[in-house]
Amino acid sequence: MSTRAPGLAELQAAAVRTGRHLRRTPLLELHGGELDVPARVVLKLESLQHTGSFKARGALNALLSRELPAGGVVAASGGNHGAALAWAAAEVGAAATVFVPSTSPPAKAARVASYGADVRIVEGYYAEALDAARAWAAGQDVFAVHAYDVPDVVAGQGTLGLELREQVPEADAILVAVGGGGLVAGLTIACAGGSPVVPVETTGCPTLHSALAVGAPVDVEVGGLAADSLGARRIGSIAYDVMAAAEQPVLLVSDEDVEDARAWLWSRCRVLAEPGGAAALAALRTGAYRPEPGSVVVVVVCGGNTDTLPAP
Amino acid sequence: MSTRAPGLAELQAAAVRTGRHLRRTPLLELHGGELDVPARVVLKLESLQHTGSFKARGALNALLSRELPAGGVVAASGGNHGAALAWAAAEVGAAATVFVPSTSPPAKAARVASYGADVRIVEGYYAEALDAARAWAAGQDVFAVHAYDVPDVVAGQGTLGLELREQVPEADAILVAVGGGGLVAGLTIACAGGSPVVPVETTGCPTLHSALAVGAPVDVEVGGLAADSLGARRIGSIAYDVMAAAEQPVLLVSDEDVEDARAWLWSRCRVLAEPGGAAALAALRTGAYRPEPGSVVVVVVCGGNTDTLPAP
Repeated sequence: MSTRAPGLAELQAAAVRTGRHLRRTPLLELHGGELDVPARVVLKLESLQHTGSFKARGALNALLSRELPAGGVVAASGGNHGAALAWAAAEVGAAATVFVPSTSPPAKAARVASYGADVRIVEGYYAEALDAARAWAAGQDVFAVHAYDVPDVVAGQGTLGLELREQVPEADAILVAVGGGGLVAGLTIACAGGSPVVPVETTGCPTLHSALAVGAPVDVEVGGLAADSLGARRIGSIAYDVMAAAEQPVLLVSDEDVEDARAWLWSRCRVLAEPGGAAALAALRTGAYRPEPGSVVVVVVCGGNTDTLPAP
Repeated sequence: MSTRAPGLAELQAAAVRTGRHLRRTPLLELHGGELDVPARVVLKLESLQHTGSFKARGALNALLSRELPAGGVVAASGGNHGAALAWAAAEVGAAATVFVPSTSPPAKAARVASYGADVRIVEGYYAEALDAARAWAAGQDVFAVHAYDVPDVVAGQGTLGLELREQVPEADAILVAVGGGGLVAGLTIACAGGSPVVPVETTGCPTLHSALAVGAPVDVEVGGLAADSLGARRIGSIAYDVMAAAEQPVLLVSDEDVEDARAWLWSRCRVLAEPGGAAALAALRTGAYRPEPGSVVVVVVCGGNTDTLPAP
C-alpha cells in the first residue's frame, strides 16, 4: 500500500468520480450566542451522508478508482468504514466482506449487514479485525480497502473539504475529529491555502497528538467513550505526514466533554451524533478552541451512527 | 380571536420580524431511487429548527407582533407549541406558563420547562389542556397564544413556505403533515400560485379530511401513534377556510406507515423525526402520493421531538 498523500487534483478527480452517488450534506447555521462564543458557528452535517458518516466518500472513491476483482472487496472496520464499504460495493455492484471488532456496538455490525455485506465479528479492537481481514484475504482474489491510510480513501474524504470550500469559503477555521486521520488529512489537503483545519482528539484516543509529540506515528492505547468511532490505534502515515507539515496543534477533549457536546447537539439542534461526531463541537464548547470575535467556525459533525439518545 | 387568514404580505412581515431569531433550516437532497420513486425528493429539515419543530416560527411571530402584558404569555400544548412559546418568550424576555396534556411524552414537558417556562400538567388531550389554560388565564393580565388558529401564528408558520420558495422554487409539490392546520395553511398561503401544498394526515387524526368531507370544521376522536404531535381534535377555522379554497385532497396514511417512514428516515438519513414529522414522507413511501416522473417533491420533516429511536 502506498502512503503517498494525494494532491488537490486527486481530490478533484474523486469529487467528479463520486459526485452523483454522494449526498452534498447540508449546513446548520447557529448564532454564536447559542454556544456562548463570539463567532458564527456552522455545523457541517456529514452525519446525514449515506451510511451516516463521511466514510462513504473514501470507500466509494477507492472502489471507483479501479477494476474490482471477482471476489469483491474486503475491509476491517469499527463499523463506519464497514457500512461505507458495504454501501459503496452495492452502488458499484460488487460483493463485500467486512470484519468488525467485537468492541463495536451491535447496531453498527447490523448496519453493515443491512447494506448487503457478509459480516464477520472479530474479538478485540480495530487492529485485531484488520489482522483477521488480512489473513482471510491472503491469496484470494479480493480488493482490500484500508479504512484510512491509502491515497484513494484520503482523496475521497477530502471531497468533504472541497464541498466546504464552496459552501463556507469565508471559514476562519474548520474543527474536525481525528481517528485514523483520513478525514483530517483530506480536509487539510482540500483547504491548503484556505481555512485552517483544526484537529480534535479525545484524551482516550490521541493518535495524532501522540505521533506529533514523538515525531512519528506510534501505537497508543485506545479506550473511552469515543473508542468505537475514533478507535484507531495509530495515526495513518499519510495523515501523519500531512498534519506534521500543516503544523496545526491538536486540541484534546475529555469523554465527558464529548458526551456533553452530544447532549447539546441533540437537545438544541435535534442532530444526533455519535461520540466521534460530537468531539469537534466539544472543543468549541470547552474553550479548547477559542474563536476570534467575529470569525466563522465550521464544526464537522462527521458521524451519526449511534443506538443511544443522550441523557436529557 | 380572529380567524381571518393572513395574506402574503403578513407572511412577509412575519419573515422580517422573526428572521434574525430563527434558523433557516437546511435541505437534504435524496435520489429518487432511494425511495423507489421517479422523482427528485428534497427533505426540508424543519426538525432542526429551534425547539425541534416549526412551531417556533408561529409562536415567535405572535409574541413579536404586539406589546406583551406584565404577566407574560400562556398556552396549552401537546409539547411542541409549548416548547416554542417558552423559547420565544425567553427570546423576547417575557414569562411563559404552559399547560401540557398528560398524554404528551414526559420528555416534551421537560423540554418546555428547559426553556424556562412554568409547566402545568393537565389530565387528557390538547382540548383539556386548552380549557385549563383558558380558565387560568381568565381575568389575568396575560397574553394567550393559541397553537394554530390565529393569524399571527399561521403567518409565522408560513415563513417556512417563503423559505421553500427561495430554496426549491422548482418544487412540483410540497408534502406536509396536518395537525391543527397552522403549518399547512401557512404553507398554502405562502405558495399560492406556486407549488401545490399536499396535506397528509393519519387515519387516527384526520381533522382536515373529516372537515372537508362534511363541509366545516368538526370534532374527531384522536388517537394512535401521532396523537401526541398531530392530536388536535378539530382543524383550525383558518386552516379549514384556506384548505377548502385550495381544493387539494388530503392524503391518509396509517400509524404503521408513519412508523415505517420514521425508521427509514433514521436508518437511511440519520434524521430523527417524531411521528408527525414522518407522516409526509409516509405518503410518498406508501404510494398515497405518486409523483410525476422527473418531478421535484419537497417533504417537510416538521418535527424531531421524540425520546425514542425507531426499532432497527
